[in-house]
Amino acid sequence: MTNEKEKQYPFLRACHRRPTPYTPIWLMRQAGRYMKEYRTLRKKYSFMEMCKDPELAAEVTLQPLKHFRLDAAIIFSDILIPLEPMGVGFEFAKGEGPVFHRPIRISRDVEKLRLFDPKEELSFLMEAIRIVRKELEGKIPLIGFSGAPFTLASYIIEGGYSKNYVLTKALMYQDPSTWSKLMDKLSKVLIRCLNAQIKAGVQAIQVFDSWVGCLSPRDYEEYVLPYSKKVLKGLGQSVPVIHFGTSTSALLELMKRAGGDVIGVDWRVNLDEAWERIGHDVGIQGNLDPVVLMGPIGFIKKEVKRILKQANGRPGHIFNLGHGILPNTPVESVAALVDMVHEYSSMTKQGRR
Amino acid sequence: MTNEKEKQYPFLRACHRRPTPYTPIWLMRQAGRYMKEYRTLRKKYSFMEMCKDPELAAEVTLQPLKHFRLDAAIIFSDILIPLEPMGVGFEFAKGEGPVFHRPIRISRDVEKLRLFDPKEELSFLMEAIRIVRKELEGKIPLIGFSGAPFTLASYIIEGGYSKNYVLTKALMYQDPSTWSKLMDKLSKVLIRCLNAQIKAGVQAIQVFDSWVGCLSPRDYEEYVLPYSKKVLKGLGQSVPVIHFGTSTSALLELMKRAGGDVIGVDWRVNLDEAWERIGHDVGIQGNLDPVVLMGPIGFIKKEVKRILKQANGRPGHIFNLGHGILPNTPVESVAALVDMVHEYSSMTKQGRR
Repeated sequence: MTNEKEKQYPFLRACHRRPTPYTPIWLMRQAGRYMKEYRTLRKKYSFMEMCKDPELAAEVTLQPLKHFRLDAAIIFSDILIPLEPMGVGFEFAKGEGPVFHRPIRISRDVEKLRLFDPKEELSFLMEAIRIVRKELEGKIPLIGFSGAPFTLASYIIEGGYSKNYVLTKALMYQDPSTWSKLMDKLSKVLIRCLNAQIKAGVQAIQVFDSWVGCLSPRDYEEYVLPYSKKVLKGLGQSVPVIHFGTSTSALLELMKRAGGDVIGVDWRVNLDEAWERIGHDVGIQGNLDPVVLMGPIGFIKKEVKRILKQANGRPGHIFNLGHGILPNTPVESVAALVDMVHEYSSMTKQGRR
Repeated sequence: MTNEKEKQYPFLRACHRRPTPYTPIWLMRQAGRYMKEYRTLRKKYSFMEMCKDPELAAEVTLQPLKHFRLDAAIIFSDILIPLEPMGVGFEFAKGEGPVFHRPIRISRDVEKLRLFDPKEELSFLMEAIRIVRKELEGKIPLIGFSGAPFTLASYIIEGGYSKNYVLTKALMYQDPSTWSKLMDKLSKVLIRCLNAQIKAGVQAIQVFDSWVGCLSPRDYEEYVLPYSKKVLKGLGQSVPVIHFGTSTSALLELMKRAGGDVIGVDWRVNLDEAWERIGHDVGIQGNLDPVVLMGPIGFIKKEVKRILKQANGRPGHIFNLGHGILPNTPVESVAALVDMVHEYSSMTKQGRR
């Protein structure tokens, strides 16, 4: 793949705020339970088995691309994948999400966490990336990803998904030195994992700080920003980076300060106001509420038009949901969404010429 | 109680943005599980039994006032209380919050919902209000409350607390006429319930739209604002009203448009920015993260000072948490918080003279 060719991808061009003939779109969890092919595979394999088998992970990555004209693929994996080789085992309990039986809450536990070589210990992921790149034959670019330090810290401290993040925040407030040791270690691991994915062939990165919206701006600035910044800086300039979170409407300026070529926002904020606030010198990704896809097509259409109007045809908008596709989403609605975004945005973009 | 005397309460003065010698403070769930006296009673009675027995509800309302120099009492009750007489039964499942075994999701179910007379069917609540007012002997004012139409709708549609509000939003999007019928009915019930509380003696109202932050500004404006506005208008001008929600940083202007003398905000937004955005012609309530109370006293102190500095001694700030006190909060920290707010704010206020 030459750099010249990469410059032609609308998705990558949008990451760099270059003009595109239409607004590129991809969808968080575009490979997932809403697709029949995915559910068929999941009957035979657990989620983790699918992540850890490069052939299966590659197959699942490619599934949505057979049905939808998406502008990017994202490698099938999980934000929690780096935690196991760090020494924090977990399992996916049925209907409950990840469960960590030995959460990390004290300094001694943090000290035991391992820095590891992702080339070795996440070789399945790197191999899946190589397979997908080959299979894609350069048609669309491939995105790699990881969680951000805060979101991963919250999982291993709480022992799973949390409603109030009491233990996570209590650690910050009560034992800031253990907190910073933990965040520091996570940052180092994430830099390694993301750089290994870039080396294996991903052409863009998304960093998911999915749960960071539980924090006050002050807490974000003091306890999170320095580490997210370190991770985002640690990736160099070789591929564009999308910095994503949910419920972040009061954190956007700080997230921009932490870094990223594109800031990912959810539906809880108007896209135009968000972009105005972070400034038009970065791209923006978002921000359809995934639940909108449960509504009638006419309603989806209205929402898509509204978001495209807010983006105003400005280079640097990547269309996406505000969070992952929900399991019961109708496949036809996803297909319609992708086509609508292309069709309506190409009219707007032409209108601006 | 004369109107003249009411004008002397710092809490009520702040609701009307009149100057006060110090910043008044009360705490959401100030009567609750973090207190030993409360836990002792809870061993003998269920939560609902306590709500429905006027003597017990009054006793619990008064418990925190024996320990902390709070500037207002709030009647012990629950936002779900009006739902049972509407015909939507629920129970509190252990550790799970409320569970509605027959959720409301179709037009026929909405039609069956009963408008009722709260003087009759919530007489226990009105009686508790009368007892508390008598016991308080005019020392501090008493707050009444209810949920807002959206938050109550979300509970009865989802069948309990929800993570993504998929069913609630799907009803909005797929069947807007059933949605509006439901919201309309809830609004009518809430107006009656709140006016009955005012008549029974509460001197201020808080409307809890606790989960409204899951919505996009557009959805709020179309599907929620008209009903919240109706409720807030339906209370007349006799007592001040606090309009509260969480994760609302992108909804604040719209919430102000819906109404309320004071807008309640959580910690996810800086108080000064929030106040700037809604305008200084309404009061603001908030916004300490309840988890901060799990931290060391020195840390709590720093956070209290930061919030008071953001409020800048401006009349119209009511100090509160951004959401309810958490069950494991140390009682000493609550006491320290209340005293600190009084002490530091009286210095600031004097400094401004």
